[in-house]
Amino acid sequence: MRLRTRLTERFGIEHPIILAPMGVLAGGRLAAAVSNGGGLGLIGGGYGDAAWLDAEFAAAGDARAGCGFITWSLANAPELLDLVLARRPAALMLSFGAPEPFATRVRAAGVPLICQVQSMPRARAAIAAGADVIVAQGTESGGHSGTRSMLNLVPEVADLLAATAPDTILVAAGGIADGRTMAAALMLGADGVLVGTRFIVSPESAAPAGFHAAIVQADGDSTIKTRTVDIARHRFWPEPDLVARVLRNRFVATWHGREAELTELPARTAASERYWAAFDAGDADNTGVLMGEAAGIIHEVRPAAGIMADMVEEAGRLLAAGPRLVAG
Amino acid sequence: MRLRTRLTERFGIEHPIILAPMGVLAGGRLAAAVSNGGGLGLIGGGYGDAAWLDAEFAAAGDARAGCGFITWSLANAPELLDLVLARRPAALMLSFGAPEPFATRVRAAGVPLICQVQSMPRARAAIAAGADVIVAQGTESGGHSGTRSMLNLVPEVADLLAATAPDTILVAAGGIADGRTMAAALMLGADGVLVGTRFIVSPESAAPAGFHAAIVQADGDSTIKTRTVDIARHRFWPEPDLVARVLRNRFVATWHGREAELTELPARTAASERYWAAFDAGDADNTGVLMGEAAGIIHEVRPAAGIMADMVEEAGRLLAAGPRLVAG
Repeated sequence: MRLRTRLTERFGIEHPIILAPMGVLAGGRLAAAVSNGGGLGLIGGGYGDAAWLDAEFAAAGDARAGCGFITWSLANAPELLDLVLARRPAALMLSFGAPEPFATRVRAAGVPLICQVQSMPRARAAIAAGADVIVAQGTESGGHSGTRSMLNLVPEVADLLAATAPDTILVAAGGIADGRTMAAALMLGADGVLVGTRFIVSPESAAPAGFHAAIVQADGDSTIKTRTVDIARHRFWPEPDLVARVLRNRFVATWHGREAELTELPARTAASERYWAAFDAGDADNTGVLMGEAAGIIHEVRPAAGIMADMVEEAGRLLAAGPRLVAG
Repeated sequence: MRLRTRLTERFGIEHPIILAPMGVLAGGRLAAAVSNGGGLGLIGGGYGDAAWLDAEFAAAGDARAGCGFITWSLANAPELLDLVLARRPAALMLSFGAPEPFATRVRAAGVPLICQVQSMPRARAAIAAGADVIVAQGTESGGHSGTRSMLNLVPEVADLLAATAPDTILVAAGGIADGRTMAAALMLGADGVLVGTRFIVSPESAAPAGFHAAIVQADGDSTIKTRTVDIARHRFWPEPDLVARVLRNRFVATWHGREAELTELPARTAASERYWAAFDAGDADNTGVLMGEAAGIIHEVRPAAGIMADMVEEAGRLLAAGPRLVAG
């Protein structure tokens, strides 16, 4: 089964599926597995670490791979963009910050520019920056996102693109983890989907087994948007509507609602040490486990290629059966 | 164009569309217009007022009409349920509270029971109460809703129903206002949709022209979930995750973030007086305008029958074209 959209045509890929460039978790091995399985793998540039990026591009080997950055963080280490552009990435994604001056450099390098947006003003900024692909990201997402739901942000951005930038490709992100949610995204006007949480639960992701188990066991009610994780990690996100969605675990139960206290030293230092120790140990109860609402429809660890084959098979079956709902 | 689903079959209706029983705004005239246009109109029982309900059922005339209640509020005036059941409503919807003991009385009266849920525990309670229809309501909705997104809550409830109550009909609510969002809901596993905000913007709704204009002008970024409206109205919602989504207007700009202050007398009394005066005057800037994220895809006032015809036409076209996305 295959789906054909403007995204598959433009990038010459088999499936209209892009790997979300999740910091730490989306390394070269996962990006390569997604690209080799027919999608487009993006390595997660995260908060920026040249040695890590070198190692992960190396791990991707000959596979096609792009890269995604947290834009406000990239502004603190802009040389990382040159480092990545020199590798001729399959695409460069910017999210969570003003796209310029980076967008101009990406376009000058002839690399496809993907801009992820969480609101209508950001969508307009992405169009102005000349994005080839706009990812409309809903609040269902794991990790950072805004307040808009994918269900309404995607058609609203689709209308904006139809009116002002009809050649720009639209990709939906947030909550997409199976064929149903993928088919829904296509009905809403997306040309493809960007998938994060579902790919964490694969043997190719860098996530420890404890994170896999936590996502498989969670239902969609098990996540929460909270600033506690960023406080413990000393990550200073500048835009207040961008908040991380994580597992509602013991760490969150301890600190959510006590943000002011957590912000003060020495509580912050102690919490941060416990946070990272638990993270390194794969202890999903005592660290931040970034995961989306889609956890409720994720039930097993699967190789990335199998995840995509399942999604496309189910979406294709639903789309092929669409006419049966129409009575005349 | 017509769509055929388990919802249209079970209720013998033309379109798989239910009017959200919005307090005040969904009166007998709007419910009748929706039913006469091929959907299922539900009168909004709101916080409970026997005289209002009598008048609105009278306004619905011979048209088929059901009714919806805020369950925790109905518990304060349970006699209203008998009043409505005596009218042989087309359906009785319970939302925002434990369905029993009301569910048993609805079923004993032979009236179809609709339970609206915002989380997985509430979905399980609705199944236990013997609901004929479960409405999975996303946080995109105008007015009160929970924290779950429609995109993920609907397939998760669909899986639960498939495993434990396969004859129960599933309806999606939250963010549905056009054919794209309707088609998406059907792809997610819903048998139909419950629509609120889109129907406010009709001549048959009880909303003043100022509210119509506010919704037409708003984009999806223009709404916010806030407790300020309930504080000003003296509505004491018992479950903390159920918060109203409203227009981000002058009232909200004044009080959001100052909830503690607003709760204190005499600020509360003064704010409440201004709130209701503006509400009665149709002043959308200085009262609570309950509206969903779907405002961003609502662009004109349309009669209820036309709204449904447009939605079904667009959804039908998208579903009929589904196979074109499948390459083989």
